[in-house]
Amino acid sequence: MRGLDRPSQSGEQGAMNRKRVSAHQPVLLATVAAKAGVSIATVSRIVNGETGRASAETIERVQKIVGALGYRPNHVGRALRRRESRIVAMLSPNLDNPAMAAIAASVETALRSAGYVMILCDTHDRAELQDEYLHAMRSQAVQGYVLVNAVQSEALSASVARGDPIVFVGRRNPAGAGSFVGIDNRRAGADAADHLWAQGIRDLAVIHPTQGSSASRDRVDGFVRRLKELGLPCEAIRQASALGLSHLEVGYAAAQRLIDGKSWPGGLLCPSDMMAYGAYRLALEKGIRIPETCRIVGIDDNALNAWIAPWLISVRIPYADFGAKVVGQLQALWAGEQPSEQLLPHELIVR
Amino acid sequence: MRGLDRPSQSGEQGAMNRKRVSAHQPVLLATVAAKAGVSIATVSRIVNGETGRASAETIERVQKIVGALGYRPNHVGRALRRRESRIVAMLSPNLDNPAMAAIAASVETALRSAGYVMILCDTHDRAELQDEYLHAMRSQAVQGYVLVNAVQSEALSASVARGDPIVFVGRRNPAGAGSFVGIDNRRAGADAADHLWAQGIRDLAVIHPTQGSSASRDRVDGFVRRLKELGLPCEAIRQASALGLSHLEVGYAAAQRLIDGKSWPGGLLCPSDMMAYGAYRLALEKGIRIPETCRIVGIDDNALNAWIAPWLISVRIPYADFGAKVVGQLQALWAGEQPSEQLLPHELIVR
Repeated sequence: MRGLDRPSQSGEQGAMNRKRVSAHQPVLLATVAAKAGVSIATVSRIVNGETGRASAETIERVQKIVGALGYRPNHVGRALRRRESRIVAMLSPNLDNPAMAAIAASVETALRSAGYVMILCDTHDRAELQDEYLHAMRSQAVQGYVLVNAVQSEALSASVARGDPIVFVGRRNPAGAGSFVGIDNRRAGADAADHLWAQGIRDLAVIHPTQGSSASRDRVDGFVRRLKELGLPCEAIRQASALGLSHLEVGYAAAQRLIDGKSWPGGLLCPSDMMAYGAYRLALEKGIRIPETCRIVGIDDNALNAWIAPWLISVRIPYADFGAKVVGQLQALWAGEQPSEQLLPHELIVR
Repeated sequence: MRGLDRPSQSGEQGAMNRKRVSAHQPVLLATVAAKAGVSIATVSRIVNGETGRASAETIERVQKIVGALGYRPNHVGRALRRRESRIVAMLSPNLDNPAMAAIAASVETALRSAGYVMILCDTHDRAELQDEYLHAMRSQAVQGYVLVNAVQSEALSASVARGDPIVFVGRRNPAGAGSFVGIDNRRAGADAADHLWAQGIRDLAVIHPTQGSSASRDRVDGFVRRLKELGLPCEAIRQASALGLSHLEVGYAAAQRLIDGKSWPGGLLCPSDMMAYGAYRLALEKGIRIPETCRIVGIDDNALNAWIAPWLISVRIPYADFGAKVVGQLQALWAGEQPSEQLLPHELIVR
């Protein structure tokens, strides 16, 4: 657990360092890196005691140069020059959604292993809150950003344009491009279609949020397209959407619209487990047996499903593995590499 | 949403301010407060644009003094003098426990309204991680700490001894004293007892973690004591405990030990909903109908219960109200007041 215990630069030594910084051009990581012939990330790690990946020769060489140039790390002082704090900010909506909590937990663990602390901010899916937090994080001099299910917003566009290190998770950058960690949403929807089709179910339906994200849309799209390939035309698939403060409410309301006095479908895709829970509540209220009467398929496979929702078929998303990928993406950006996409494998789970 | 949008001190103005700070004694909030005859907290709010609680006369007076003395707020620069950042750190275990996520969401919202950003750190219930984060937070110059379900640890004792502003949530300070927000755990257990007793159930049981927190112990204690008052001696109550990585596993394993080939009790208290979910999974596997054969009572009343676990009777803890209380406690500590306890009301919910 290296890298987290740093004495603050207080007292006489701190004052001397601050004088040095203001009197001369500050010695940057980049200066040391150039002289040592290594990356900034390598110097940063060595300076912070995370020497694991560097050779003993490199470590010694870098440390000598640090001493010769008089480079002094100071977490808070460094923050004045941005990109050198030990904080990474995660902006995520709806932490009470188990999937969001799982992503946060995974990224927090991975960042901690890499020597960073994570600020977690709940954007509640609102552009103005996303902006508020992006502004606030700039003034706290964070090292990078992890945007989970980002929405289009002014400050985000500005941040991207500035080249800030940002990793998008779940939903891609609404304005396009950027580092991304997620799954193949279309394929997830298609896998749900394959499963229901293989069960011999032809009376199929799908619900979704009226104001859905690109992830929801892609999942529904993959489902419908796959069924078309299998021989079921789009018009034969019942669909309904609804608005709601959470996917729980969306699922319930959309299922109400879908059923509306008619029979329940043999199979129903809900683009998230939370929507599936909403549809399930309606089924319970109506005395409909799940899965006997209707097989509900969700996406996420929240950890609680195995304990209290064995009726739910779901596409497992390996959230526990997201953290390492996100941190890898951040390190690549810090090292000056181009953004890239990383899709993790998903898997349909039947209990 | 005042207080979060702060331009960073960059460019020429920022450089001038930094020179001023290093060349002279920095002008502190305390200096302005003394001259204006108000509290530091009041100056801080006015300087940050949160003028709601101050009179127009006070605001004008303070602003004049700020100008005359040349006081300049700079979030990161201020952090060098601690206690003046806009960050509050929350240390919480197990963010994938819906109750923990609910507390985090509630506190985050309340802190945002008060103009702060929250760093959220998952301690995984481990003393060494709690210590790591407390050390890391000191070097980030946070304004205060919110410790959810704190465990005994060296850095915590040191922090308390230093008089750092800390609010304990859920579990009190393991070392005693300190500001606290939670519920009356004994009463919650007693209410569960009253409910089952009123249903005519006399074949009662309780499970709990072998290494339980004070909250779990108090809930079990309240349950057992109330039953004794009602006429059921302690020996007549079946009990079992188990270890586990999470309360899900603890609930499952403890229920296994409890049942062990015997019949299921008519009523079973689980000191958390997560333990109840664990017991429920065992019941499902054994073909036991809940609540018909066994009424399971949990504590938390997680939001998902209404959607996918209507079989669970649970004691609702008003986590959505914790945030405002926690922030109120922090503000009291910042204003120099003594720590205090705030117990919120709980309510048994039957669906």
